[in-house]
Amino acid sequence: MSPNRTIGILGGGQLAKMLATAAAELGFNTNIYCPDRDCPAAQVSNETVVDSYNNYDELADFAKNVDVLTYEFENIETKALEELEKIVEIRPSIKALKICQDRYTEKSYLNALDIKTTQFYKIDEVQAIEELLIKVKKPILIKTRKLGYDGKGQVLVKTQNDIKENFRENQLLPSIAEEVIRFDKELSVIIVRNKEGTIKTFEPGENMHQHGILLTTTLPSSIGKELLNDASIIAKKIVDDLDYVGVMGVEFFLKERQLFVNEIAPRVHNSGHWTVDGSYSSQFQQHIRAIMDLPLLSTERHSDIIMYNLIGKVTSNLVNNELAKVYIYGKKETRPGRKMGHINFIKKKGS
Amino acid sequence: MSPNRTIGILGGGQLAKMLATAAAELGFNTNIYCPDRDCPAAQVSNETVVDSYNNYDELADFAKNVDVLTYEFENIETKALEELEKIVEIRPSIKALKICQDRYTEKSYLNALDIKTTQFYKIDEVQAIEELLIKVKKPILIKTRKLGYDGKGQVLVKTQNDIKENFRENQLLPSIAEEVIRFDKELSVIIVRNKEGTIKTFEPGENMHQHGILLTTTLPSSIGKELLNDASIIAKKIVDDLDYVGVMGVEFFLKERQLFVNEIAPRVHNSGHWTVDGSYSSQFQQHIRAIMDLPLLSTERHSDIIMYNLIGKVTSNLVNNELAKVYIYGKKETRPGRKMGHINFIKKKGS
Repeated sequence: MSPNRTIGILGGGQLAKMLATAAAELGFNTNIYCPDRDCPAAQVSNETVVDSYNNYDELADFAKNVDVLTYEFENIETKALEELEKIVEIRPSIKALKICQDRYTEKSYLNALDIKTTQFYKIDEVQAIEELLIKVKKPILIKTRKLGYDGKGQVLVKTQNDIKENFRENQLLPSIAEEVIRFDKELSVIIVRNKEGTIKTFEPGENMHQHGILLTTTLPSSIGKELLNDASIIAKKIVDDLDYVGVMGVEFFLKERQLFVNEIAPRVHNSGHWTVDGSYSSQFQQHIRAIMDLPLLSTERHSDIIMYNLIGKVTSNLVNNELAKVYIYGKKETRPGRKMGHINFIKKKGS
Repeated sequence: MSPNRTIGILGGGQLAKMLATAAAELGFNTNIYCPDRDCPAAQVSNETVVDSYNNYDELADFAKNVDVLTYEFENIETKALEELEKIVEIRPSIKALKICQDRYTEKSYLNALDIKTTQFYKIDEVQAIEELLIKVKKPILIKTRKLGYDGKGQVLVKTQNDIKENFRENQLLPSIAEEVIRFDKELSVIIVRNKEGTIKTFEPGENMHQHGILLTTTLPSSIGKELLNDASIIAKKIVDDLDYVGVMGVEFFLKERQLFVNEIAPRVHNSGHWTVDGSYSSQFQQHIRAIMDLPLLSTERHSDIIMYNLIGKVTSNLVNNELAKVYIYGKKETRPGRKMGHINFIKKKGS
């Protein structure tokens, strides 16, 4: 263990907060870069630089004062990161980030690796949506290529009129279009890889979304072992191909026993929060260990567990349960659709 | 849950660090009061006031800015705390703290509750040690009444010459004397009680000390269930009698199937660090919940585990074990006998 090293984290939300806590546990310092002075991660970090992600000078200063740079979200301009990379090592690498920043690039990349995604169409202008709707004769979902999260940047299009209403000024373009499909189940793999190529995967959890936002992750899932194993193999293929260092979240759809990758997140992931209370290690500990070249921990699950997101609310009547582990992120403002905290409901194994 | 409340912690060491992390997890702010600017808890807290525990004005200012006051060590002058109590609620109460601050008061209190301790003698002057040594004709251990920890403030006396050498200037006085006894085993109970009187105890762990400092805590212990249960009952008697709010550590000696309380600590305790990785809740979460009037969590143990203190060292060859959870406190200076971190070695249940 090498103490007194400093980890820089871009972003100061709940993921950064939990990463900073895991880093502190191992004796590392953490510096946060975030535009919001009251961000959740500030409380549990050594220093917080409050500035815009577009201020390249400030970002460069930040990078000079840390030993390794990581991030809690993928929507940072790669131009900025390319400058920072000259100053300090960024983990996971910009390569992974670039792919994940753009839904079109991401899905094309996955297909090139022989990994199934839902069928998608590149949409650069409104006319392409009109033509596609005529062609497929089914509702289609338009998703912005960049900067979408938690169901934001998505429009469901059923009629030509929907197109007129929603794309008057080329909002959301460039984007991709997908046919609307009802999936049987959703699951995700939380995977970690270190520089030496050692890989560990947590058991895939089953996800339930509401209004495009993750609501619950359940372990064990109702999905058969063979498919869970297949999902882990796909995730391994991705991190190996990217020579990836750190934790990645890979979201899958399941339909008729076929796995489709929905998206990959080059960071710790909401659907991995259960690991803090259900596994012998957490995704946050593993990410810090991977980026700091420490040996990875066991990902074995010791308990059955359901992670439940507190969306747009902080309070919950559900907490009077002695196996309910509540996490409150400490965001100053409660807004509808905003993730304010989560609860890990532990269900003892075998019960 | 009531966010935006602030917990004040007196002391900034590793116990305060782990308490502050548990508080942040629940969305509470934490302010630390500590004479050392580089104290471990500063990193994971909102604010750190760096000043002496004897600066009553500064302490009063600190108390005015928090909603509840707690502490990570028991050697704070009660005069100071009595002033602070006029400003803000202190949990656990000063009553418990006063008893634990003085070995003579502590043991007398326990005996008055019909709880066994080893036989002890009040020593106010050197002459009393000389007389006692003649009387018992066995080595005796002199322990300072106040401010002793980790084997400090203790002298083993075998001859009248030992007395001359060690007590020339009344060092360590007033103190207590105990006969030196070889105990069969040592164990401790980590117990938590809230304001309503709800009590939860963690399964007692078996302790091993080296040079007066805790080295390991092992769960499960090699001690029979009946005795473990007896120890928990004794701990319950103490917290109920004190109308205690928070976590308490109760250390026991075992000899010939008889339990003797060695000492009680009105705070989270080193021998409870295993709870972070071996139980459905940690002592730190329970302490924060108790002092903030939140429901207590389950104390059930899910894994076999050994806690191993890193004393006077930070590095360890033992960490290349995927079930070894390492905690590094982040103290700037490594000194012999100083607790620098610990490792929780998880042993899966039944393995």
